[in-house]
Amino acid sequence: MTMVEEVRSYLLDLQQRICDAIEAADGKARFLHDDWTRPAGGHLSGDGRTRVLTEGAVFEQAGINFSHVMGASLPPSATAHRPELAGRTFEALGVSLVIHPNNPYVPTSHANVRFFIAEKDGEEPVWWFGGGFDLTPYYGFDDDCMHWHRTARAACEPFGADAYPKYKQWCDAYFFIKHRNEPRGIGGLFFDDLNEGGFEQGLAFMRSVGDHYIPAYLPIVARRKDIPFGERERDFQLYRRGRYVEFNLVYDRGTLFGLQSGGRTESILMSLPPLVKWRYSWAPEPGTPEARLYEHFLQPREWV
Amino acid sequence: MTMVEEVRSYLLDLQQRICDAIEAADGKARFLHDDWTRPAGGHLSGDGRTRVLTEGAVFEQAGINFSHVMGASLPPSATAHRPELAGRTFEALGVSLVIHPNNPYVPTSHANVRFFIAEKDGEEPVWWFGGGFDLTPYYGFDDDCMHWHRTARAACEPFGADAYPKYKQWCDAYFFIKHRNEPRGIGGLFFDDLNEGGFEQGLAFMRSVGDHYIPAYLPIVARRKDIPFGERERDFQLYRRGRYVEFNLVYDRGTLFGLQSGGRTESILMSLPPLVKWRYSWAPEPGTPEARLYEHFLQPREWV
Repeated sequence: MTMVEEVRSYLLDLQQRICDAIEAADGKARFLHDDWTRPAGGHLSGDGRTRVLTEGAVFEQAGINFSHVMGASLPPSATAHRPELAGRTFEALGVSLVIHPNNPYVPTSHANVRFFIAEKDGEEPVWWFGGGFDLTPYYGFDDDCMHWHRTARAACEPFGADAYPKYKQWCDAYFFIKHRNEPRGIGGLFFDDLNEGGFEQGLAFMRSVGDHYIPAYLPIVARRKDIPFGERERDFQLYRRGRYVEFNLVYDRGTLFGLQSGGRTESILMSLPPLVKWRYSWAPEPGTPEARLYEHFLQPREWV
Repeated sequence: MTMVEEVRSYLLDLQQRICDAIEAADGKARFLHDDWTRPAGGHLSGDGRTRVLTEGAVFEQAGINFSHVMGASLPPSATAHRPELAGRTFEALGVSLVIHPNNPYVPTSHANVRFFIAEKDGEEPVWWFGGGFDLTPYYGFDDDCMHWHRTARAACEPFGADAYPKYKQWCDAYFFIKHRNEPRGIGGLFFDDLNEGGFEQGLAFMRSVGDHYIPAYLPIVARRKDIPFGERERDFQLYRRGRYVEFNLVYDRGTLFGLQSGGRTESILMSLPPLVKWRYSWAPEPGTPEARLYEHFLQPREWV
């Protein structure tokens, strides 16, 4: 098996396992399957398997994408910090998911694992892994944040004591909404350009991150999905979803990479929430549960 | 009066006139006044007058901003196509507005007029005007599009026969959502980097564009605001508003300029609609009024 075949095989299996787990947790809705191919020869070719679940009992929308594309040249979002790769052809494959629950007490979650190879005639291919997962609560619970980060730490444990602090810190730095001076959520793990230690080691780490997503998220869903809520909590959830849209469209490297490289727009923008509110210059009253999100949870901190 | 004083005086008056006209057309809601200043000495300083009307009888949200900022260096969004200006200090002032009506038969409209000066020790200041207005229908009417473009043409008329076709074409090119391969709406006028003919001529053109916005928009509002509509039309409006968000956060030069230069986020993002929907891979049934938007209106064409 080539590197790409080995990664592809893992990713397809991961996607299936996550879809099964999410469907089981929802108990009502099923994933729509949308498989697509782009013929070879164009600027971008490849295939993908888009899975979308909507209007579930627990999940308002869950999008879990696999894609595998080959491109004629790396777009700016991929080479801004690695200009030596500009103009190379590339192959990219990954699983990317965003889950928007119904209940505002259940956080939104995101995970992504990916593998890139950039090639150029007469030079060695350059390859790297990237990925991570992060959590975005509306009404936070310390227990949930600790469980999330403990699971993130467990994913990193076989890879040295440095791994969790390094990728936790990278996640905090990456998922930061500069124009709001606000983190997107309570973080988790983020890694990119991972090449050190060789392919097998990189794949093992990516697998560990991918495999720890469901044990990180579903116990939190189970604990919070039946908490009663009303218009107030729903309203706050819709308002806060606006921040998710802002981050994804203004900063997210995966989203911009996808749009710039001519990727499949509907699959890329499946991360956007089904219903969103914006409101001019709104802020929660001090002392409310909504204010506590900003004061207690949206502050960089060590959760484990 | 300096150039800046002359522009500022016009812009403040324009903002006031537009707010008065919108309030009168709404008949119920009033503009919230939010004036702000940023002290000198920081990376960005200046002042602004934010005006927001929400939950009106006719307008769900109308944001009409004046801002006047001085910055230590032009951000990437302003110098991408003019690299010779990178690193210059700048002064920027403008009025920018977006109106989101309640009734899906009333189009969303946007207008902006602005003046920039970029300075560098020992070199001549570089200044330019920019602006325009464009219309985004949900359910279009040929009469409205013709009226809108006739008014745009009238704004250009004193400035030569080339002006309208040039700025109409620039508008079509600018308000294009690449990742959807779709225009944002039916266009209007867009101009930038306008320096030729000297300051008085540039100011006269910017004034003409600014002064023609209300006569372009309000007659359309008056004609359509009382058309009965139901859940279906409202749903389509909320879905199409998603495209507005996508354009503004991914492409709009003014939005990116504001966010990158450290501008006042709440004022900049006032352009985002109060309520928005996204839906995976949705498209209207052929033959419906919703399909007609794509087939008939979201196609570049000559309206006059």
